[in-house]
Amino acid sequence: MNKPLLQIALDTYDLPSALGPLQRAHQQIDVIEVGTILCLSEGMHAVRAIRSLYPDKIVLADVRIAEAGSIISKMAFEAGADWVSVVSGAAPSSFEVVLAEAQARQKDMQIELSDGWTWEMAQRWSDMGVQQVIFKRSRDLEAQGQLSWGQQDFDQIHRLAEMGFKVTVTGGVKPADIPLFAGTPVYIFIAGRAIVKADDPAAAAKEFQDVISQTFGAAPASPPGIETPG
Amino acid sequence: MNKPLLQIALDTYDLPSALGPLQRAHQQIDVIEVGTILCLSEGMHAVRAIRSLYPDKIVLADVRIAEAGSIISKMAFEAGADWVSVVSGAAPSSFEVVLAEAQARQKDMQIELSDGWTWEMAQRWSDMGVQQVIFKRSRDLEAQGQLSWGQQDFDQIHRLAEMGFKVTVTGGVKPADIPLFAGTPVYIFIAGRAIVKADDPAAAAKEFQDVISQTFGAAPASPPGIETPG
Repeated sequence: MNKPLLQIALDTYDLPSALGPLQRAHQQIDVIEVGTILCLSEGMHAVRAIRSLYPDKIVLADVRIAEAGSIISKMAFEAGADWVSVVSGAAPSSFEVVLAEAQARQKDMQIELSDGWTWEMAQRWSDMGVQQVIFKRSRDLEAQGQLSWGQQDFDQIHRLAEMGFKVTVTGGVKPADIPLFAGTPVYIFIAGRAIVKADDPAAAAKEFQDVISQTFGAAPASPPGIETPG
Repeated sequence: MNKPLLQIALDTYDLPSALGPLQRAHQQIDVIEVGTILCLSEGMHAVRAIRSLYPDKIVLADVRIAEAGSIISKMAFEAGADWVSVVSGAAPSSFEVVLAEAQARQKDMQIELSDGWTWEMAQRWSDMGVQQVIFKRSRDLEAQGQLSWGQQDFDQIHRLAEMGFKVTVTGGVKPADIPLFAGTPVYIFIAGRAIVKADDPAAAAKEFQDVISQTFGAAPASPPGIETPG
C-alpha cells in the first residue's frame, strides 16, 4: 500500500490569510487545495497565485462543480489547477464533460461523495473512467453520535478502492485519527484548520506526515495519472 | 398579478466582460445576477464592484451554496449581495443557516430547484419561511424533445406560487417565450446571453421589458421582503 499524500485545505476569506500558513507549511504538503470558500472569495486569482508560488505541487481547485462543468473546469485548469472537484449530485452529463476536459489536458477530476451518493452511481463513475473520489464521514452517523471514524467508513473506503478509485479522506481529520486508518487504502488525507490555524503550521503538517509514515510506512506515493507540473 | 422583474445573468470569465454590457443595459434591469462562473472567476470582488456601481439595483450572488452555508452567505452579503442562491440538494441544515443569515440582515435567499427536487422538499422550505425559488425547465423533458416551455412548467410554477413562493424562471428564456407565461405568476425572468451577447444590450433588455409589460401589464412589481438598497 502506498503512503497517503497530505493535502492542505485553504478555506480562508482572502488569499493573504491562506498564503501565510501555506508558505510556512508547504515543504510538508503534497497537495494544495484552494477551497470552495477561497475560490469564491478570490476567484481563480487564488489558483493562479498558488500555482505560481508552488509550481511543483499538485493544486486542487475545489470548485464543486454541479453544472456548467465544461466552463468551470476549463477556467480552473487554465488558472493552473491540476485537479477540480465535482459534486456527486451534479447533473449526469457534468461528470463526462469535466472528465473529458481533464483528460485532454492530462489533468484530473475528483468526485465529492455528498450525502445521497449510491454504489450504483459509483459504479457508473468507475465505468466512465473516473479515478478519484472524496470520501467524507457520514453526517447521518455523526448526528447519531458517532464522533470519530469507524469500521463502516473503513469498509466503504476499501470497497471504493476495490472499484479502482483513489480515495481522498476528509472531515476534520486530526493526527490522532490517522492510526485508525492502518490497512485502509487511503490516497490522500485532507487537513484544513489543523494546519492553517496552528500556531506553527510547519510543525502541525510535519506531525501529520510523521504519523502517516508511522501508520503506512515511509515510501511516498507517486500521484499516478498526472504529470507533476514544473 | 404583479409585473415580473427582469434579471440579467452575468456569467463571463472576467469582470470587465460583464461590466460592458451591464453598463449599457442597466437602466432596463431590475436584478443583477453575479453568476456562478463570474463568482468563481473573480470572487466576491465582482459582487463588490457591481454593488458599488449600481447601488439601487438588487444584486444576486449566484454562489449555489451546497455546504458551508453560513460562511459563504456571510461573505456574499458582506460583499454587497442582496440575495444568495442555495441548491435544492444542499445539506438540509444549509437552508436554515442561510435563511437565518439572510433574515438577520434583511436580505434574502433563493433555492435553485435542480433535478431531483420534490414537492415534499418544497413544502418543508415553505414551512421554514423560504420566500424564493428558481425554476428551470426540466432537463428530462428537454431530452425527450420538449424544446420550449409547456403546460407542465406553468402548472408547476402555479403550484409553487400557491405554496407562497416567489418564482424566478430561467433556462434560455427569449422574448418570444414570455407571452407563453401569460397568466402564470412569475416573479422574475432571467436573461443571460440574450442580453449580454447582444449587439445592443440596452435594446435587447428593452425588448424583454416591453414584452413583459405587454404580457403582464405595466405596473412594476415592488420586490417584497427586501429593502431596496441605497
